[in-house]
Amino acid sequence: MDAKEYLAKTSKELDAPVRRYIKDELPSDLIAAARQYPYAGGKRMRPAMAVAAAGAVGGDKSKAVPLAVAVEYIHNFTLVHDDFMDGDEKRRGMTAIHIAYNVPTAILAGDALFAKAFQIIADLDIPAERMRLVLQYVSQAVWDLARGQQMDVNNEGRIVTEEEYIETIRLKTSVLFAAAAAGGAIAGGADDATVKALHSYAMALGLGFQIYDDYLGVAGDPSKTGKSVGNDIRKGKCTVMVTHAVNSIKDPKVLAELKSILGDQKASEEQVFRVRRILEDAGSIAYGRKLAEKKVKEAISFLDVLPPSEEKDFMVALARYAIDREV
Amino acid sequence: MDAKEYLAKTSKELDAPVRRYIKDELPSDLIAAARQYPYAGGKRMRPAMAVAAAGAVGGDKSKAVPLAVAVEYIHNFTLVHDDFMDGDEKRRGMTAIHIAYNVPTAILAGDALFAKAFQIIADLDIPAERMRLVLQYVSQAVWDLARGQQMDVNNEGRIVTEEEYIETIRLKTSVLFAAAAAGGAIAGGADDATVKALHSYAMALGLGFQIYDDYLGVAGDPSKTGKSVGNDIRKGKCTVMVTHAVNSIKDPKVLAELKSILGDQKASEEQVFRVRRILEDAGSIAYGRKLAEKKVKEAISFLDVLPPSEEKDFMVALARYAIDREV
Repeated sequence: MDAKEYLAKTSKELDAPVRRYIKDELPSDLIAAARQYPYAGGKRMRPAMAVAAAGAVGGDKSKAVPLAVAVEYIHNFTLVHDDFMDGDEKRRGMTAIHIAYNVPTAILAGDALFAKAFQIIADLDIPAERMRLVLQYVSQAVWDLARGQQMDVNNEGRIVTEEEYIETIRLKTSVLFAAAAAGGAIAGGADDATVKALHSYAMALGLGFQIYDDYLGVAGDPSKTGKSVGNDIRKGKCTVMVTHAVNSIKDPKVLAELKSILGDQKASEEQVFRVRRILEDAGSIAYGRKLAEKKVKEAISFLDVLPPSEEKDFMVALARYAIDREV
Repeated sequence: MDAKEYLAKTSKELDAPVRRYIKDELPSDLIAAARQYPYAGGKRMRPAMAVAAAGAVGGDKSKAVPLAVAVEYIHNFTLVHDDFMDGDEKRRGMTAIHIAYNVPTAILAGDALFAKAFQIIADLDIPAERMRLVLQYVSQAVWDLARGQQMDVNNEGRIVTEEEYIETIRLKTSVLFAAAAAGGAIAGGADDATVKALHSYAMALGLGFQIYDDYLGVAGDPSKTGKSVGNDIRKGKCTVMVTHAVNSIKDPKVLAELKSILGDQKASEEQVFRVRRILEDAGSIAYGRKLAEKKVKEAISFLDVLPPSEEKDFMVALARYAIDREV
C-alpha cells in the first residue's frame, strides 16, 4: 500500500474517534463550530503519524488513538484562528467559522478545541509518567506554534534569511508533526532514544513537506494544486527559493526586478511568469526541491533504529510522498 | 490580617514566579505581548487561592506556586481574547494588546499563555498521578470557560432565566476559581474528599463573587467602583436582579418600562435611575445581595473539613470579603 492509500485508510479509521470527544453540550453553536473543521476530514497526517509511531515501536496502536485525536484538534484549533487572522473564507469546502458564525465564536471554538485536546491527554490510558512526557512534548509544540505563527505574521513582505525562514516553518509546521510522532512512540512504550529518533524524523519531514509545498506553489501545476502560481509571489512569501535567488543573483538589475515584483499584489501574469523564470535561471527552484529532498532523506535516516514493520514502511513512504506529489 | 491585606501580600509574592516561565525567546513582540497582562499585577485571587489551598490541607505551599502561575496565565489568556472580542481598550491601566500590538498578536499571545500554562503543569514537582488530576481539573475548566464565554456572547440583549445566568457565570468565573483551589489541594497532597470540598468552596465563592459584582454594578458607589451605574443597565446585562424583577413585577406598565430601558445604549441618566428604582421596589437589588450572601455562606461551610490554619482563615476571610467590598 502506498502512503496515499494508507493515509486515506487511516483518515477514515479516525472518523469515529474524532467524533467521540466533543459531546452534545451547551451552547450548541460553540459545539457545532468546534466540530466543523475536525469532522470535515482532511489528510489527517499528524494523527496518522501518532498511530503509526505507536505501532512502529511495537506498541498497542489503540493506546495512541486518543492522542491522535488530540493532535488533530490542536491542528484544527490553529486552522480556526489562522483562517480568521488571514481572512481566509473557505476551508475543506465549507465556509470558515469566523464567517459562518462570527469572530468571537471562531476564537472560542479554537480555544475550546485546544482545551479539549488537553482533556484527552489527561485521560490517556497509559501510565501517568508517560502521560506527563506526552504532555511536555505537546504543550511545548503549542507554545512553539504560536511563536511560529507570529514569525509568519512578522515576515510578511520582508526578505528574511534562509535560517529565519526554516525556523519559522519548523515552529509553524514541524513541531506538531514531531510531537505527534514522539507522543505516539511514548504511548506505544518506546524508550527515550527511540522517542527522540521519531521526533527528529517528524521534525525533518515537516521541513521537507513545507519546503516542497513552497516548491509546488511556484513550480507546480495549478490545475492540480488548485493554487495559482502567482499566489505566493504576489504575497511576497519569502521561501528558501527566494532567499536563494536574492543571495545568488549578481546582476543588480535582475535583482531589482525580482524584488519589485515580489509582494506586488497587482503583479500581472506576465510579471509572475518573469519571476518564475528569474528563480529558474538562478537555480533557485531546483535548490528548493533539492533542499526538500535532503530533509526527507535525513528524516528517513532517523528511522534506522526501528525494526521492520508495516508502520515503519508507512513512515518511510509518507516521507517519500512528501516530496513526490503534485498536490 | 484581613483578606485584602493577605491578597496584597500574596499578589506581591507572586511577582517573581509570574516572571519565571516566559523566557526571552523569538519573536520578541509575541513574548512582550504575552507578558503584558500577567506582569501588570491585578488581584491575583486565583493563584492566591491555589497556594492557600495547598497550605490549608497541610501541604507544602511551594509545590503549588507553579500551578498558581499556570492558573493566572490561563486567566490572563481569557482576558486577552475577551478584551479583543468585547472591544475593550484598557486593562490594568495599559492599552489592550489587540490595540497596543494588533489583532493577530493578541490572539497568538492568548494562545501562547494558554500553552505555557500547560507546560508548567506538565513540569509540576509532584507525583505524575497527582499531576494528571490537576491537569484533568484545569483542562476541564478551560473547556468550560470557552462555553461560558460563548453563552455570555449569546445572552447579550436577551432576558435569560436565573438558571441560565447562574450557569453562565459558573462557567465564566467559578470553574477556574474551583480548578485553582482543587489543584492547590492536590499539589498539597489532599485526599479526594478534601479536594472536592475545596472545589465546591471555590465554585460557590465564584458565584457569590460575581453576583455581588453585579450588585455593585447597580447599587455600588460609582466613585469607588469606577463603573457608572448605567453600564450594566445600558448593556442590558441580564443579572439575577433583572430576572428577579421580570418574574416578580405584576404591573405590565412597569415591566414594559423596565424592558424598554434595559439594553438601550442611549438611555439617559434619568432612565437609568428609574430602572434602579424599579429594581429596588421589586426587591430585586436586595434579592441579588442576599443570593450572593447565601452562596458565600455555602462556600464557607465546605471548609468545615479543614483543620484550623492561617490559610483556612484566609479562605474564610476571602469569601466574606467577596460580599463585603465597595470595589
